[in-house]
Amino acid sequence: MKRNFNLFFRFVILVALTGIMSVASAQFGQRGVVSPVVHDNGSVTFQLLARQADKVSLSGSWMQGWGASLEMSRNDTGLWSLTIDPIPSEMYTYTYQVDGVRTLDPANGLTVRDGVRNESMFIVKGQRGELYSSNDVPHGTLSKVWYSSPVLKMNRRMYVYTPPGYADGNQKYPVLYLLHGAGGDEDAWTTLGRTPYILDNLIAAGKALPMIVVMTNGNAWAAAAPGEAPAMAAPADRMSLAGKFEESLVKDVIPFIEKNYRVLTDPGHRAIAGLSMGGGHTMTITNNNPGLFSYVGVMSMGLMTGNRMGNYDADKHKGQIAALKDSGLKLYWIGCGKQDFLYEGVVNLRKLYDEQQFKYEYFESEGGHTWPEWRIYLSELAPKLFK
Amino acid sequence: MKRNFNLFFRFVILVALTGIMSVASAQFGQRGVVSPVVHDNGSVTFQLLARQADKVSLSGSWMQGWGASLEMSRNDTGLWSLTIDPIPSEMYTYTYQVDGVRTLDPANGLTVRDGVRNESMFIVKGQRGELYSSNDVPHGTLSKVWYSSPVLKMNRRMYVYTPPGYADGNQKYPVLYLLHGAGGDEDAWTTLGRTPYILDNLIAAGKALPMIVVMTNGNAWAAAAPGEAPAMAAPADRMSLAGKFEESLVKDVIPFIEKNYRVLTDPGHRAIAGLSMGGGHTMTITNNNPGLFSYVGVMSMGLMTGNRMGNYDADKHKGQIAALKDSGLKLYWIGCGKQDFLYEGVVNLRKLYDEQQFKYEYFESEGGHTWPEWRIYLSELAPKLFK
Repeated sequence: MKRNFNLFFRFVILVALTGIMSVASAQFGQRGVVSPVVHDNGSVTFQLLARQADKVSLSGSWMQGWGASLEMSRNDTGLWSLTIDPIPSEMYTYTYQVDGVRTLDPANGLTVRDGVRNESMFIVKGQRGELYSSNDVPHGTLSKVWYSSPVLKMNRRMYVYTPPGYADGNQKYPVLYLLHGAGGDEDAWTTLGRTPYILDNLIAAGKALPMIVVMTNGNAWAAAAPGEAPAMAAPADRMSLAGKFEESLVKDVIPFIEKNYRVLTDPGHRAIAGLSMGGGHTMTITNNNPGLFSYVGVMSMGLMTGNRMGNYDADKHKGQIAALKDSGLKLYWIGCGKQDFLYEGVVNLRKLYDEQQFKYEYFESEGGHTWPEWRIYLSELAPKLFK
Repeated sequence: MKRNFNLFFRFVILVALTGIMSVASAQFGQRGVVSPVVHDNGSVTFQLLARQADKVSLSGSWMQGWGASLEMSRNDTGLWSLTIDPIPSEMYTYTYQVDGVRTLDPANGLTVRDGVRNESMFIVKGQRGELYSSNDVPHGTLSKVWYSSPVLKMNRRMYVYTPPGYADGNQKYPVLYLLHGAGGDEDAWTTLGRTPYILDNLIAAGKALPMIVVMTNGNAWAAAAPGEAPAMAAPADRMSLAGKFEESLVKDVIPFIEKNYRVLTDPGHRAIAGLSMGGGHTMTITNNNPGLFSYVGVMSMGLMTGNRMGNYDADKHKGQIAALKDSGLKLYWIGCGKQDFLYEGVVNLRKLYDEQQFKYEYFESEGGHTWPEWRIYLSELAPKLFK
């Protein structure tokens, strides 16, 4: 049956063989439908061919409110479309609902995975959009690297970004350890976080120093992102994993990086930052290891003292803060959005730090507990490191 | 608005902070629907919650015939399902059609991009499935590497797989240059081709020697996969690019690899293989550069002598074959499927080689011009290299 291969594709292959492969044939499309179309003013047109559908709606990361969506309208050829008002320069994700089923845009090949959900994505060009895009600048190398974790008793996967110039130079570089949030994995900062693009662009613009960025998997029970390691059984005693990722970062990851990469190994060239759960990891690691990092970034995570946290020990924490104060810190940076549901915890954390006369830099953004904020925080924090 | 964050996720984050993140909460799902479920006997159950849909069908890579699909049936809760008969151990891709719209499985986070299409994917375990999976064996490193191409006048992206042991050793390794087909890009061999998994597993089993694998973008007009480089304008004179990728591989890629990696640089430790268009590239490169590679693999590509090819020059080709015969080749390997629409071209290529008394090894599989064949060919070819 397969020998009766679609004639169009047969022709594409023949044409391609002669080296005259058409650019157009490699563009994404759904039977000629182009979607999304980002207009110069930042408005965006979405189109979906769905002749037999009764209802099609659009959900996008720019919409306010959980589960928000907009209905699309159908023309008499069965093409559903919607043009939204201009939105700011950013990276956005979206899905359709076709008769109640969440659907990626079949006309858009660009997708991104947010934990357990895949979504279609696009970028509205402009200042932020450019920062999050692959531009014609020198690029670093992004590697999927496996390392042994004696602490977690498994081989685990992480990403290592080495900056432009690393491959053919002899220079040693500072390192930023960058931690994801709950529901994420080692992919998250490289995809939704746009870390390689942001670093390439900030370094090219002279705004950030060339650095290595290490993005681990913060789920102590997992070796790697879904599908990238044999499925793991749930640990028999989950509490036994409490604090283990944090321990593993210090005992397994840092020594691996400092052995296998050309790295400046003094605390002044070691930074750590994380978002949400990764911000919690960052606080635990730096509280437990004063002096290990001179640069610390806590994103969208505050003080957790509620009953759910069990044994929060205020005196112990104050002792840790005192030790951090004396540890030669060059920057302790906190970022949070005004709409973040953890905002009050961040207020409480800052209050405690103020009371303890512990210096930090605070950056407040407009948004919530979402990736646009974390991309902004990385873009704000990276230029402050190692200077 | 975002401060009213969904209570469930708030709880997930709080729980995760204490290090007791549930394994189950990180599994893929669509409101509790698990799909696909691969049963021990190789049958597979697909499920989709689509209360308002009138018709849902399933298309999968295991089905015979272009555009084949199977209708799913709805129960009274709006759950559509279908269990297919057992299929062999393999990696499979599939999509749903929901009221005529091609849809990924929202319950399955694992996806793969085939050119301009995204599809959901799963693996049926067993011999091939294991070979294509991430197992508990030593893993190589897969890196996205940018290099300068003076021939194509741009910076371009490729993948470099370095085998387990590369990072912390001093050994020099042989290199396989592995080329994709029309419609693909540098991602293809790493995703649909499962190259890192296949190499990890073959090396761990002692079946293949540790080697570096270089996977380039064979589209001379493109710097990188879609979204990974600024959009390129169509070249004004497309014919000017004929043969340029092939030239660039020899003049740009090989020198870059041999400068930046610990590589054995004699022809006996240099291999090249490609599928379809990449098989054509492989033939062009090896015909034009006899003696550069001691190992050659041509997959699903034959002799192209038709009018569409323009200036096929039989005498020139025979001269090239004669030069290859004297070039110290250790293996010239041809793989093709019985159902491949280019099968006749492969018959003609072999006939020509036989007439010219040019030795090659021929591997014939059962399938067509599809990824299952190319994964098999890589799995067959890699163990024969550099021995």
